[in-house]
Amino acid sequence: MTESPDLASDRRALARLITQIENGNPETRNLVARLYASAGSAQIIGITGPPGCGKSTLVSGLARYLRARPHPPQVAIVAVDPSSPFSGGAILGDRVRMRELSGDAGIFIRSMASRGALGGLAGATADVVSALDGAGFDVILIETVGAGQLEVDIARIAQTVIVVEAPGAGDEIQAAKAGILEIADIVVVNKADREGTAQTIAALQSALDVSRPESAGASAHKHGPMAGLPAFDSPRNMSMEAPEIDGAAWQTPILKTIALNDEGIEAVAAAIEAHAGYLRASGEGARRRARAVEQDVRARLADVLIRRALAAVSREQYDALMAAAVARAIHPAEAAERLMNASWGK
Amino acid sequence: MTESPDLASDRRALARLITQIENGNPETRNLVARLYASAGSAQIIGITGPPGCGKSTLVSGLARYLRARPHPPQVAIVAVDPSSPFSGGAILGDRVRMRELSGDAGIFIRSMASRGALGGLAGATADVVSALDGAGFDVILIETVGAGQLEVDIARIAQTVIVVEAPGAGDEIQAAKAGILEIADIVVVNKADREGTAQTIAALQSALDVSRPESAGASAHKHGPMAGLPAFDSPRNMSMEAPEIDGAAWQTPILKTIALNDEGIEAVAAAIEAHAGYLRASGEGARRRARAVEQDVRARLADVLIRRALAAVSREQYDALMAAAVARAIHPAEAAERLMNASWGK
Repeated sequence: MTESPDLASDRRALARLITQIENGNPETRNLVARLYASAGSAQIIGITGPPGCGKSTLVSGLARYLRARPHPPQVAIVAVDPSSPFSGGAILGDRVRMRELSGDAGIFIRSMASRGALGGLAGATADVVSALDGAGFDVILIETVGAGQLEVDIARIAQTVIVVEAPGAGDEIQAAKAGILEIADIVVVNKADREGTAQTIAALQSALDVSRPESAGASAHKHGPMAGLPAFDSPRNMSMEAPEIDGAAWQTPILKTIALNDEGIEAVAAAIEAHAGYLRASGEGARRRARAVEQDVRARLADVLIRRALAAVSREQYDALMAAAVARAIHPAEAAERLMNASWGK
Repeated sequence: MTESPDLASDRRALARLITQIENGNPETRNLVARLYASAGSAQIIGITGPPGCGKSTLVSGLARYLRARPHPPQVAIVAVDPSSPFSGGAILGDRVRMRELSGDAGIFIRSMASRGALGGLAGATADVVSALDGAGFDVILIETVGAGQLEVDIARIAQTVIVVEAPGAGDEIQAAKAGILEIADIVVVNKADREGTAQTIAALQSALDVSRPESAGASAHKHGPMAGLPAFDSPRNMSMEAPEIDGAAWQTPILKTIALNDEGIEAVAAAIEAHAGYLRASGEGARRRARAVEQDVRARLADVLIRRALAAVSREQYDALMAAAVARAIHPAEAAERLMNASWGK
């Protein structure tokens, strides 16, 4: 598979490529690298939030809104979310709306498995997103369930992260509880015709105020994409410390939508545009991308290292060390070090 | 810190040790290894579920129930859950109940950060749990938010996994959506005085039937703790394939509780005992532990490998490769391979 098909128009070839990326097929490597080289012009938006908040409906609404513009962009939707109707969790109403979307040749929808190999899912998602970017899609919407480090890592592939919340009982904020509010560039309270919307907005506002006590610009660094990066003892960490942000600070807006009725979608699209402008003007977009690439390289490094290490020890060595750890004769950290020492350099 | 204090009675020493484990302090290494060697007798129970389902109240109820028995066990609670009142998310009622617990010298409560270094959190949690086990605690309750691979990995440190669900609107099952139902040994529908309890139980039952179409014993292997293990191309994978389970199959029960009123706690405790008996009689307990240790060793291996690799390349090499990947001159996978080749064996 060395020739580059016209992937943006040949949807079957695109779907096949994505499946191959998901499966870690080494034959796609050259094509993936070429698409990565020509990527960089798409607007990549992560949409995350707890199950049941209406993320998929918002994603559909955004895609339809963008496609109804005078010069409609090519839109790709990537769902890495077991609760998404795009990923199979559809109830009847969702399926009807999805069929409307899938009738539009300018929208490409793809779901990805939410469980993968160590270091594999974030890497595969990054490859799929850059393949879509390189293939010419203008807007890429990534939907994740937004709980757990892996989902947070995936959301961070995006330039703009939208955290969606539904009005809850009392002051329960699911997004704050799941620890994802800190990565929000835009907060959307969906199903805003429900009772408790005002309290939820107030609770979200105070949660945002707590997590970003200083100016938003300075704290975007502190609580932003860096927060979940693995901390190493090596001096390499130094290179990831971004300077303070120049230009205007970003104040995370809280927007109300009723995505089911397409209410509030336009304001969300406007906030996305405003955030894109902020990323460009402040230089934060470039810094964020550098951090995401570094995180991606490190995850892939861990993956190739462990593959090489496991290939370099004999089955007998491996089984004996595992048995010793299971029998509590050695600690698992000791077993890991012995595996490393048996393989490193071989 | 080479002498072994009487950790079960010296709570301050125990709390200090756990902090050191969390911080990855190398001085604790010998003590952690000694505690690991003497661990193995505690009953380790994972309690997981979406935010707001009442996990912490159930954990408190279970701890108090166990402590009211004729020969009360020493109970440790480890909360790896940002939404847990044990981890700081307490509202007033929770705090009152927690103060009751903390007045009991036979209960030790500890929260752990839910974000950590690559491979670090699951490993640190495993070390904390085996330290508590080795220090003489009889029952260890691990509370996690139960969404995302990391939380699932942590839940799997347990011998018995309880997935908690609250009655929802219609047929929305948060646990199924978050993909954690498949690791459940016991399902608890808490807040069972709420509307929709019967529908939630019916939906959970059909979700369990779907995910375990064969006999429960056979599918416990297929959908059990193996499901999320990283898949490697190496022949080592073979050693993780457990044989089919001998003895009686385990049928995941669905139990109703109103943990706030201590209703249904006794039945949950009885189900835990029944599951412990099943694990012993079937040999599944030993197989599950072997898989958990293997997973732990591999995560630690990835951690030490990446540390060694990063220590072996120069700052200039590292920065140049990152800059090339950011500039799209090379793909992140290429950068990772070059980093590996520059470091492996050095």
